[in-house]
Amino acid sequence: MEGALTNSSSSTSPKGRGVNFSAPRNFGVKLRKKCKETFFPDDPFKPIGQEPNGLMKTKKLLEYFIPVFEWLPKYDLQKLKYDVLAGITITSLAVPQGISYAKLASIPPIIGLYSSFVPPFVYAVFGSSNNLAVGTVAACSLLIAETFGEEMSKNDPELYLHLIFTATLVTGIFQFAMGFLRLGILVDFLSHSTITGFMGGTAIIILLQQLKGVFGLAHFTHKTDVVSVIHSIVVNRAEWKWQSTLAGVCFLVFLQSTRHIKQRYPKLFWVSAMGPMVVVIVGCVVAFLVKGTAHGIQTVGPLKKGLNPPSIQHLNFESKYLGMVLKAGIVTGLIALAEGIAIGRSFAVMKNEQTDGNKEMIAFGLMNVVGSFTSCYLTTGPFSKTAVNYNAGTKTPMSNVVMGICMMLVLLFLAPLFSYTPLVGLSAIIMSAMLGLINYEEMYHLYKVDKFDFVVCMSAFFGVSFISMDYGLIISVGFSILRALLYVARPSTCKLGRIPNSVMFRDIEQYPTSEEMLGCVILQLGSPIFFANSTYVRERILRWIRDEPEVVEFLLLDLSGVSTIDVTGMETLLEVQRILGAKDIKMVLINPRFEVLEKMMLSHFVEKIGKEYVFLSIDDAVQACRFNLSKAKPEP
Amino acid sequence: MEGALTNSSSSTSPKGRGVNFSAPRNFGVKLRKKCKETFFPDDPFKPIGQEPNGLMKTKKLLEYFIPVFEWLPKYDLQKLKYDVLAGITITSLAVPQGISYAKLASIPPIIGLYSSFVPPFVYAVFGSSNNLAVGTVAACSLLIAETFGEEMSKNDPELYLHLIFTATLVTGIFQFAMGFLRLGILVDFLSHSTITGFMGGTAIIILLQQLKGVFGLAHFTHKTDVVSVIHSIVVNRAEWKWQSTLAGVCFLVFLQSTRHIKQRYPKLFWVSAMGPMVVVIVGCVVAFLVKGTAHGIQTVGPLKKGLNPPSIQHLNFESKYLGMVLKAGIVTGLIALAEGIAIGRSFAVMKNEQTDGNKEMIAFGLMNVVGSFTSCYLTTGPFSKTAVNYNAGTKTPMSNVVMGICMMLVLLFLAPLFSYTPLVGLSAIIMSAMLGLINYEEMYHLYKVDKFDFVVCMSAFFGVSFISMDYGLIISVGFSILRALLYVARPSTCKLGRIPNSVMFRDIEQYPTSEEMLGCVILQLGSPIFFANSTYVRERILRWIRDEPEVVEFLLLDLSGVSTIDVTGMETLLEVQRILGAKDIKMVLINPRFEVLEKMMLSHFVEKIGKEYVFLSIDDAVQACRFNLSKAKPEP
Repeated sequence: MEGALTNSSSSTSPKGRGVNFSAPRNFGVKLRKKCKETFFPDDPFKPIGQEPNGLMKTKKLLEYFIPVFEWLPKYDLQKLKYDVLAGITITSLAVPQGISYAKLASIPPIIGLYSSFVPPFVYAVFGSSNNLAVGTVAACSLLIAETFGEEMSKNDPELYLHLIFTATLVTGIFQFAMGFLRLGILVDFLSHSTITGFMGGTAIIILLQQLKGVFGLAHFTHKTDVVSVIHSIVVNRAEWKWQSTLAGVCFLVFLQSTRHIKQRYPKLFWVSAMGPMVVVIVGCVVAFLVKGTAHGIQTVGPLKKGLNPPSIQHLNFESKYLGMVLKAGIVTGLIALAEGIAIGRSFAVMKNEQTDGNKEMIAFGLMNVVGSFTSCYLTTGPFSKTAVNYNAGTKTPMSNVVMGICMMLVLLFLAPLFSYTPLVGLSAIIMSAMLGLINYEEMYHLYKVDKFDFVVCMSAFFGVSFISMDYGLIISVGFSILRALLYVARPSTCKLGRIPNSVMFRDIEQYPTSEEMLGCVILQLGSPIFFANSTYVRERILRWIRDEPEVVEFLLLDLSGVSTIDVTGMETLLEVQRILGAKDIKMVLINPRFEVLEKMMLSHFVEKIGKEYVFLSIDDAVQACRFNLSKAKPEP
Repeated sequence: MEGALTNSSSSTSPKGRGVNFSAPRNFGVKLRKKCKETFFPDDPFKPIGQEPNGLMKTKKLLEYFIPVFEWLPKYDLQKLKYDVLAGITITSLAVPQGISYAKLASIPPIIGLYSSFVPPFVYAVFGSSNNLAVGTVAACSLLIAETFGEEMSKNDPELYLHLIFTATLVTGIFQFAMGFLRLGILVDFLSHSTITGFMGGTAIIILLQQLKGVFGLAHFTHKTDVVSVIHSIVVNRAEWKWQSTLAGVCFLVFLQSTRHIKQRYPKLFWVSAMGPMVVVIVGCVVAFLVKGTAHGIQTVGPLKKGLNPPSIQHLNFESKYLGMVLKAGIVTGLIALAEGIAIGRSFAVMKNEQTDGNKEMIAFGLMNVVGSFTSCYLTTGPFSKTAVNYNAGTKTPMSNVVMGICMMLVLLFLAPLFSYTPLVGLSAIIMSAMLGLINYEEMYHLYKVDKFDFVVCMSAFFGVSFISMDYGLIISVGFSILRALLYVARPSTCKLGRIPNSVMFRDIEQYPTSEEMLGCVILQLGSPIFFANSTYVRERILRWIRDEPEVVEFLLLDLSGVSTIDVTGMETLLEVQRILGAKDIKMVLINPRFEVLEKMMLSHFVEKIGKEYVFLSIDDAVQACRFNLSKAKPEP
């Protein structure tokens, strides 16, 4: 072949340095591998398969699917001591939070208490995190209320409650299905930046919602965006009650100082954990003594004694509400998953433990399915409770069992006492929790390190604050996906030069001392080459050549970073070869990866390019080009 | 530092082989570079900036934006000869196609002729392709009719026509804006596979639509999907007319044989190009002689003499139609762009010429804006006409001017003659054109090379055939984007080994002879590491380590293929380091690229990992690890 390169590596040379042109793998093999990588990246069944006999295999499988079988046999008194302490501590947080968040969702406060009784038992059996404490969360509570709208909660509170149970069932089934189908991949698309911004924005709107309680307003908007809420507060300024505001400020100052104490002296974490309970008790006592309701201090109102009544007969699948129910269930389910999994993982990492996202989804799902049958609404792993649980030294999910038992006692004997809780106290508790969710430092960190991450974060933050929670989330995820697509649509290319006295070729811009090879342009392509970026890749390659001041005779494309290629991508490379061929420039490919080379073989691409133009390393290719150049020179 | 690696390359060693830890670039610099890569990958203004003085710069700029200034001064008689020949040939195709496609869009046939008169002049001025012939296309014509629905076209044909002009204006503005904003990137997401499938599916449904003409049916469904159409033909079998069917089959056989001749003897391309005109003329004569209408052969009906009347006063922006108009305009605009650009580019590549996607968009946009003012509907670069133009030897866009002039003559003098054209003749012309658009070979090629590409193609094909054109397109693009996201969500990793007697490290699976390094696991990561794949990357790395039979002391991550990283990605790597640290495994990073290293510096990631754990090449890292291992061994 005229002008062919002397490619010492093209065939099975004795040195064994050739490109491996052997036949591509079977399609079935590749598909199985791909599916495994997509859905089972952690290869969970491998240890089970290694067990010698069927009995052990069943045992391992049971342990895998129901984690309680793994940790309970190893359980001892020492661990129990810690778990009991942690369980009691989180109960003291669960009571006020349960009541407060139920208020946020516009449902009877007792539902909030019910929700801390049944689900923790379910989680203890199926959950894989040792630190997570089960409970309701502010963001999802508000989001549920937003989805169904205030009208329904006012006009027909019974129907409203039943729809919320139904949405909880939907959430449960959705979460379970996601875990079962191993679709943890969907949660991955809620990036860290999105969650930071979403939490911050949610905190802002929940904080503003609480001003209703602090100012003791009777009339208030039911929209959640910043503008409507501030407008509503200003318009209703005639209703402001100084008693309420004073109490609110006192409580908030108290709660924030307990937080401050915790930050100063981490050992005193229980001061902060007990804080909300103290506020509730003090509030109840004061409200009872001064007959607060007469002075315009609103209280929670009647709370019935007794355990969760069944709610399975109330589930409502009427088609006219089904759309709303599905939307509420799925959106809150996704957010609850993202929050719960992220939080569970963060704390596990601190202890060098592992949590399994797919197992967590199944546990959350079962918890909500069972919850929806027993008068509970959506539960997940809230940040504040989990942090307290972690600090209290929990060792296993047993702390959730302890919390469940404590909650049972509260429901059986103490519930009516909490009916005097002043709303302003609850508002202060929520506000204090929300202040901790606005993560300024993280936002500043994002701003400094990655401007696009910052934009994603801010779009969630401002979207939630000024539009609504679901739009904020959608906008932010949209930006993230746009970014992901931009990555693939505009993969970075760079020109390589030789690091002096070595066979390494590196980015010339990054290593300015590296030397260019005369007559050769060496480009490193990153990412897959496929339909979404093939035009760009072609333009960019041609531009590199155009920008070259010297005469170019060889274009060397380093494909080490190209993880895959599709039909459009290969056509693009052929097009580049044709265009360059017309300018007497030869195209050389270097180190195509396994999958890429397989496709090139299947589509006869290698034959079209010529095997002698495919090399295993840049150095080999440069040697061959130079040899060819020096040989070609004397000819004319 | 205890256990630190002896990294000869960590500082500015005399050999100059160190990792370049210099300060990151300024944000502004990076942003400008990023924007340039995203929107101006071909760097179009560079040659202009190189001009010495302002006058030359203006001239170059004018030449850039209005390509006619570039080619017209160099125009000569020799080129004119070819262009006149090509122009006349494509006119003979434009007349029957214009009438047929207007029928497809349910608008008066004369509009189809108008659409081949004004737009070609506009394209000749602004277009950058030398091969493209301007005209209407079947797919978009049918899609427009589908969007507005048959009811409107029946009940109020005037309003229907005015809305189509308005949609054409929307298309024009949209295409112009896309070109102006350099959003060619959007067209990239219509992959080759999608277009193959979409064209095939469209050909199927258009073929079926033509059976109405061939069977001479009076009643026919207005749905486009295969099931409805076949059902409609069977139900109305009482209306079948053998005269019509016979004529249709004859015409089709004639046209297909001219195509066959062209394929056999490419020099005789004009036989095939003139075919449709012959059908029309023969059809007219026969219909006139036998008084076809009396025998149930339907004809086109009255065609007025005269040039395009202005239509600017008919544009209709009433809000109740606006949604439909915008949808029709934008969807057809996108498809027309994708088709026009892809076709223009395919032919340019054969001649080793270049077309500029963004310029083409501007030209198409202007063409449609002007068209919508002068009673034309959507035009682009149809495949059949462009192929004929190319074969006829066109040299410049002047052939479009010639076609425009010929069309003017037709409109002024010959139009009424064509009113005798039998519909069955038009049906045969369309069917013959459509048969060429089903690209079986390409589909089989996709099936063989890339199963996912095949799925994308088939989803467009069957989606268009059995649901509707827009859904088919959306499903297919959805699959493509899903694939793009899967690429980034599940980047391939592989384990590297040393190729014997070299310093090259390659995929062990691909090169089975390569040697593993004792105590070290070397992994190559591909693609960016960011939110969408960070969980996967972590799981995958940990699994590689778990699967290792020997004791692992070092994990070497080759980051050469990692084109970028975000905050979540860096946290993931730190998490991996912490988890491995607990197992006494040290993590070493190799050759982070420019952008990646910059972000690592900004977020103090490098300090957390330790500079001595970052190497420039795998070989350096392996040397350091081995040195460390041999040193560590004797100690205990």
